[in-house]
Amino acid sequence: MKSIIIDMDEVMADTMGGMINLYKTKYDGEIKYDLMRGGSWIKGFPPEHQSMVRQWLFEPGFFRHLPVMKDSIAVINELNKKYKVFIVSAAIEFPNSLHDKLCWLNDHFPFLPWQQIVFCGSKSVVHGDYMIDDLVRNLETFNGHKYLYSGYHNAEITGYDRLNNWQEAAAIFL
Amino acid sequence: MKSIIIDMDEVMADTMGGMINLYKTKYDGEIKYDLMRGGSWIKGFPPEHQSMVRQWLFEPGFFRHLPVMKDSIAVINELNKKYKVFIVSAAIEFPNSLHDKLCWLNDHFPFLPWQQIVFCGSKSVVHGDYMIDDLVRNLETFNGHKYLYSGYHNAEITGYDRLNNWQEAAAIFL
Repeated sequence: MKSIIIDMDEVMADTMGGMINLYKTKYDGEIKYDLMRGGSWIKGFPPEHQSMVRQWLFEPGFFRHLPVMKDSIAVINELNKKYKVFIVSAAIEFPNSLHDKLCWLNDHFPFLPWQQIVFCGSKSVVHGDYMIDDLVRNLETFNGHKYLYSGYHNAEITGYDRLNNWQEAAAIFL
Repeated sequence: MKSIIIDMDEVMADTMGGMINLYKTKYDGEIKYDLMRGGSWIKGFPPEHQSMVRQWLFEPGFFRHLPVMKDSIAVINELNKKYKVFIVSAAIEFPNSLHDKLCWLNDHFPFLPWQQIVFCGSKSVVHGDYMIDDLVRNLETFNGHKYLYSGYHNAEITGYDRLNNWQEAAAIFL
């Protein structure tokens, strides 16, 4: 059985969407999606709020109730029957996210047992057959086949096979 | 630079020692070290307290103030200059341990940045050049050179290179 390493933020969880939702409950600054292209999605927030928004990532609760990426639950549930699925999130940078991320996974992906969850720093320590991730820095050290999961922040990256949504993942893997 | 995957419990942290200390603050049952041989160290506690002691592993705070294994700080500090060191703990089984373990590492091993820490379920997803672990189930899927770190619970295991203490690790790796 082959293994698939799946990232959480911007792949399973709509982290940017959750941040925009939170921001709009407090401020009415304009989100500029074109400024996210080729960099961090934080660059799409008004300059005076970018450091604050980044700080929100470190606070308890932020990762607890993020929206789920469309079709990810159904497709990962099927993948889990045909592959060794590992959810690998570079979460150690955000210590308060660990508990939130576990609860979030338990809410939405209860079919994934604890054995299949990894919270790491550098993903260079992880190996497998396939990796689905939105960040080149995570893919570039991987030993298997790499898929870049598309988002505004990686729109200008070339040289990787892409997954634009979970239906495309289903078509390839199932 | 070669990589070394280092386990936490029973390798860097004296988890059994911490449990015995905690137990002795509350009960005066006898700890039978010979009953730990070839199994879980929980078997060394009186039978009527074994399920309670196992439950303590799931409670917030248990992993926060464990004793540190002798010489581990000094030796890992030196290893960290010559190798890519990754601390890999199968901590996801114990959700409340995650925050405690990060704080414990920050207390005693502040020279290890977040990039080098991994909390996982199954360690089969981790690869590298060397692994130091006290559990055969973690070593058996590893692709590199394996060292069993000795403890009462693995005293009867054969077929692995052993590290009996951190001075032996220094002699081999430094």
